[in-house]
Amino acid sequence: MSPDDVAARREAFYARADTQHLAPLWTRLKALVPKLPAHQLVPHVWHYDDLRPHVMESARQISAAEAERRVMILENPALRGSSQITNTLYAGLQLIMPGEVAPAHRHTQSALRFIVEGSGAYTAVDGEKTIMQPGDFVITPSWTWHHHGHDGDGPMVWLDGLDIPMCTFFGSTFREDHDQAEAPVARPVGDALARYGSGLLPVGYVARNLNSPVFNYPWARTREALHALTKAGVPDAHTGHLMRYVNPVDGGWAMPTMATMVRLLPAGFATLPYRSSDSMVFTTVEGRGELRVADQVFAMGPRDIAVVPGWMPYTLHARDDWALFSYSDRVAQEKLGLWREARG
Amino acid sequence: MSPDDVAARREAFYARADTQHLAPLWTRLKALVPKLPAHQLVPHVWHYDDLRPHVMESARQISAAEAERRVMILENPALRGSSQITNTLYAGLQLIMPGEVAPAHRHTQSALRFIVEGSGAYTAVDGEKTIMQPGDFVITPSWTWHHHGHDGDGPMVWLDGLDIPMCTFFGSTFREDHDQAEAPVARPVGDALARYGSGLLPVGYVARNLNSPVFNYPWARTREALHALTKAGVPDAHTGHLMRYVNPVDGGWAMPTMATMVRLLPAGFATLPYRSSDSMVFTTVEGRGELRVADQVFAMGPRDIAVVPGWMPYTLHARDDWALFSYSDRVAQEKLGLWREARG
Amino acid sequence: MSPDDVAARREAFYARADTQHLAPLWTRLKALVPKLPAHQLVPHVWHYDDLRPHVMESARQISAAEAERRVMILENPALRGSSQITNTLYAGLQLIMPGEVAPAHRHTQSALRFIVEGSGAYTAVDGEKTIMQPGDFVITPSWTWHHHGHDGDGPMVWLDGLDIPMCTFFGSTFREDHDQAEAPVARPVGDALARYGSGLLPVGYVARNLNSPVFNYPWARTREALHALTKAGVPDAHTGHLMRYVNPVDGGWAMPTMATMVRLLPAGFATLPYRSSDSMVFTTVEGRGELRVADQVFAMGPRDIAVVPGWMPYTLHARDDWALFSYSDRVAQEKLGLWREARG
Amino acid sequence: MSPDDVAARREAFYARADTQHLAPLWTRLKALVPKLPAHQLVPHVWHYDDLRPHVMESARQISAAEAERRVMILENPALRGSSQITNTLYAGLQLIMPGEVAPAHRHTQSALRFIVEGSGAYTAVDGEKTIMQPGDFVITPSWTWHHHGHDGDGPMVWLDGLDIPMCTFFGSTFREDHDQAEAPVARPVGDALARYGSGLLPVGYVARNLNSPVFNYPWARTREALHALTKAGVPDAHTGHLMRYVNPVDGGWAMPTMATMVRLLPAGFATLPYRSSDSMVFTTVEGRGELRVADQVFAMGPRDIAVVPGWMPYTLHARDDWALFSYSDRVAQEKLGLWREARG
Repeated sequence: MSPDDVAARREAFYARADTQHLAPLWTRLKALVPKLPAHQLVPHVWHYDDLRPHVMESARQISAAEAERRVMILENPALRGSSQITNTLYAGLQLIMPGEVAPAHRHTQSALRFIVEGSGAYTAVDGEKTIMQPGDFVITPSWTWHHHGHDGDGPMVWLDGLDIPMCTFFGSTFREDHDQAEAPVARPVGDALARYGSGLLPVGYVARNLNSPVFNYPWARTREALHALTKAGVPDAHTGHLMRYVNPVDGGWAMPTMATMVRLLPAGFATLPYRSSDSMVFTTVEGRGELRVADQVFAMGPRDIAVVPGWMPYTLHARDDWALFSYSDRVAQEKLGLWREARG
Repeated sequence: MSPDDVAARREAFYARADTQHLAPLWTRLKALVPKLPAHQLVPHVWHYDDLRPHVMESARQISAAEAERRVMILENPALRGSSQITNTLYAGLQLIMPGEVAPAHRHTQSALRFIVEGSGAYTAVDGEKTIMQPGDFVITPSWTWHHHGHDGDGPMVWLDGLDIPMCTFFGSTFREDHDQAEAPVARPVGDALARYGSGLLPVGYVARNLNSPVFNYPWARTREALHALTKAGVPDAHTGHLMRYVNPVDGGWAMPTMATMVRLLPAGFATLPYRSSDSMVFTTVEGRGELRVADQVFAMGPRDIAVVPGWMPYTLHARDDWALFSYSDRVAQEKLGLWREARG
Repeated sequence: MSPDDVAARREAFYARADTQHLAPLWTRLKALVPKLPAHQLVPHVWHYDDLRPHVMESARQISAAEAERRVMILENPALRGSSQITNTLYAGLQLIMPGEVAPAHRHTQSALRFIVEGSGAYTAVDGEKTIMQPGDFVITPSWTWHHHGHDGDGPMVWLDGLDIPMCTFFGSTFREDHDQAEAPVARPVGDALARYGSGLLPVGYVARNLNSPVFNYPWARTREALHALTKAGVPDAHTGHLMRYVNPVDGGWAMPTMATMVRLLPAGFATLPYRSSDSMVFTTVEGRGELRVADQVFAMGPRDIAVVPGWMPYTLHARDDWALFSYSDRVAQEKLGLWREARG
Repeated sequence: MSPDDVAARREAFYARADTQHLAPLWTRLKALVPKLPAHQLVPHVWHYDDLRPHVMESARQISAAEAERRVMILENPALRGSSQITNTLYAGLQLIMPGEVAPAHRHTQSALRFIVEGSGAYTAVDGEKTIMQPGDFVITPSWTWHHHGHDGDGPMVWLDGLDIPMCTFFGSTFREDHDQAEAPVARPVGDALARYGSGLLPVGYVARNLNSPVFNYPWARTREALHALTKAGVPDAHTGHLMRYVNPVDGGWAMPTMATMVRLLPAGFATLPYRSSDSMVFTTVEGRGELRVADQVFAMGPRDIAVVPGWMPYTLHARDDWALFSYSDRVAQEKLGLWREARG
């Protein structure tokens, strides 16, 4: 039989099988199971100076109450319209103005907040408020009531990281709105940090979910830890002084779907190339440096935000002492046996 | 300002923000974070009598060697073209004929095989062959060399379950082809079951990945266990006698991305409605019964395959003693803190 | 001051301090914290031929009912009067005759039974009977009701291993006698093995204690596993083919205080010297060989029992295919960070 | 046969069996497996005012160098000569004077230090010094090099808690003396607390042993946490505000053999009776109160030390805000499945 005949015969077979919702694997195998990760992400840096006017304008366009959450989503330039910064994660900049309240709701999506600008606003999570300062890392666990408010002065902005695409993918998205704008607050500010974040745990404590019960990791403490590291030994050649936020209940990652990390690169330090299968979102907390990825060089200063696609080698070069917060789906990939990295 | 003016002003703002790859959350919030799971899956049953002719014809259309894997993919009728049976999982029927070899490769995708028909074929995984019989549950862990062959008589068919969509979603897909059709086999048949599946483990054994080192759970043993359960107590009202395949190294699920289960419903037993956030693939091992889901009734006999979308209530009604194998992404959802169920 | 004066002055000080229940560490430090383990155990082998007449005579001296448990304790020759075979463990040979019942009680001490001789007797643990055969390893978890009975013919003997000294040491010993000689039996024979020991676990199963829910590991299956190992690769040079009984719930040791192991040394195989910090009790299941320890050579045949003190190097030399069961406190030492081994 | 004849016959049998190192269980069963814990401990309180003169005199009797460790052991009054404060644990008061060095050694025994008096002394553990202040809890893990020194002024005293009896019991005691009085110090003061005790862990960190890598839990932070608890809710009726020191690597107890806890009882608060199977050593950090145990009432002020035998009910009644540190073998008992408690 000629190749054309074979092809025709096969097409006829495929058409018959199609009626049973059957399709041949062999025509798709290489695309379904490619040799290397095949996503369409591109690296990108958002400079905060460019973003800030739009974020501030959002307050003039809509109130927090009307918006429910007044957030400007950072979309990966290759995934416009998707509300995604990576395949699996969402990022946005949320603004709250003095006197506003973003009303209480809960959802299965987990959220991290990394505070960018301002002070005096609070997040209330599961009956406890925390006052947020720039550099703080704040957790809203899956299915916990939360609302935000602002008793201070001036605009307050934070980076929201959520696992929205992951929850959508797994078909496990549930949301509920509270019947009050502000959910009841039952514990004093600082209770969780004292109770769970001081090297101690209550005897008999049983975790209610997979998130760290410490829901605010203050920058003051994180910063002190990072700088202490610079006194003892050299930074890792590929990552710098890299730490992960930890759930004190089990020593694992602070959140079950998003790996959160912070690193310090001493002034002048340049990393060797590194890549990992998780796409990464970075933001500068302090200092300046350059991110090189895929033949592009991005200068990054305070509050700038970057996305680096998975499995693309990148380097970081610190101009000043450069502190970077980052988040990715590494924790999910590790649990599923999918995460890998390469150095050099 | 009139509503139209507000809308126009906002649209102008959105357009300006768009240049920075920014988008407003508030216009999308309800769709991104819906009140309930919002997938497009439909329930469906494939009757093996309808499938078998197509599966057998595939052998006349293409050889195992040319196809690499001669599989007819079972696509969810609502996801045609996607190679998906659920949002996160793949299913197919693989056919191997006597004397054929499906050549050795490895990939980050994990595979399960549930044997449907025939005998005498083997899977070689990581240096060990296992001879497959109907009802056996066989594991190919992520990134292990494997090939299939058939030294016996007659066609051999199994259900392939893979986490292809999950690996794609996480951007962690790697594949490598072996330089030989058959990867070297270093251990005798049955070694893994003896070594890891007899209530014992080698002292000092360290697991190399997150999968069970027992890579064939023979039906003979599983069947005996299921029937022993019927002697002690009543079946669970919503699930019947439901067991999960276990990794003896840690007591967890046998595979890190796919939860594999088997259940027995005594003749005449009917479950109360049950639903969970994981979409489920079922296949009948023995017996007959009815699956009711979303006002549809599907009769299921031996080798029939069903898909039940997540969060749709369903019931099972056994005509004979009905044994069902099933797989889903429940293990992934549990690890990520996303899984939930409802009874009644 | 002269040395005598110093000594006298110190003694006077010690006497004054003594009134406050104070004592100087420095006069005792070397003894309290010695360079090497300082126990008084000796190695010993009990030949079953020598033991059996005494065990059988016990039935003529006392009934099971009167004795509650008719056991001849194996005492380490260096610890006579202590009821200990090692510092931390107890061993005894229990005899039950047809028609007898050893009445139901429970205690915090955990017990293992390794069946030596006879058939037809049962142990009932926590509502389930298991019929015992030679070579079976049976668990009575801490604080579970249990009694023994014998519906068959001929005497039945098993090796009892208990953690009595450990419970005494920790001051956590509780005992309760059942108000009936035979505690109620609620599940059929074989239920636990089917439910927990077939590579499956019930979905939603929650362990009630730290012991394996599989409370009888039958020798037939263990033996098959051991012999399968001989087909794949060489035995470990210092231990032979060494396996541990496993708790399927977590992959850990089958019991929380006593490590239970079984090994096979092919005929002619001789181990290199090995030692570990746990003192070990051995018994031959099948075959013959020699145990060398501390310049002593002990021939061991079926049913012979040996004790090897911790940290004494020993070797095993198999005459036939030699299968040995052993137990020790290794699991406790590992959990406490105290266990160590040395090879060669 | 008369009872006397039976007894005589049995005695003759016991004598014959004795030659085989066999002994009957039934004559010992009630004593070996008693209904309730049967230890000989007594409760006791040492008042620091009574102890201090003896501790200070020890410096006039012997140097730290000569003593190796200049410690006055606190012996349970019922266990004189045993160097034990409970069945399983050791306690002592160690004194170091300015300029002294207690030379470097390591041993399998784990040690905790709870600082009682003075300031300026340091402990060097595994290459890092920590400066100790009253109320600090300091860990010396098993088999880590450590020495103590004092660069400040005035005497420095701490409570030493060790698991010496446990290591002796398990026959796993090893000791090695360093060839230098002071083992090398490689990391700056505070490195471990920054690296492991700030809510972060280094990415890729692998624990080397079962102890917390945070080896100094400073009182300043612990105190702040305890007082924060008093703002949120009532103390537990039986234990007060009770916290445990935690290993950040896994969320477990800070040490593998000794459970370390700290509690605060607000002024006036009195606990209901409580008992647990672990014998407990207490010391007052701040405040005053009364310990009632076994019909005895002990007043306790700062630095006083108490021992409460296992399974004896006790109550605590706070006069001032009363902070108590305590340690016991609870962690070991929990791992072994032996720990139990009773309230009321």
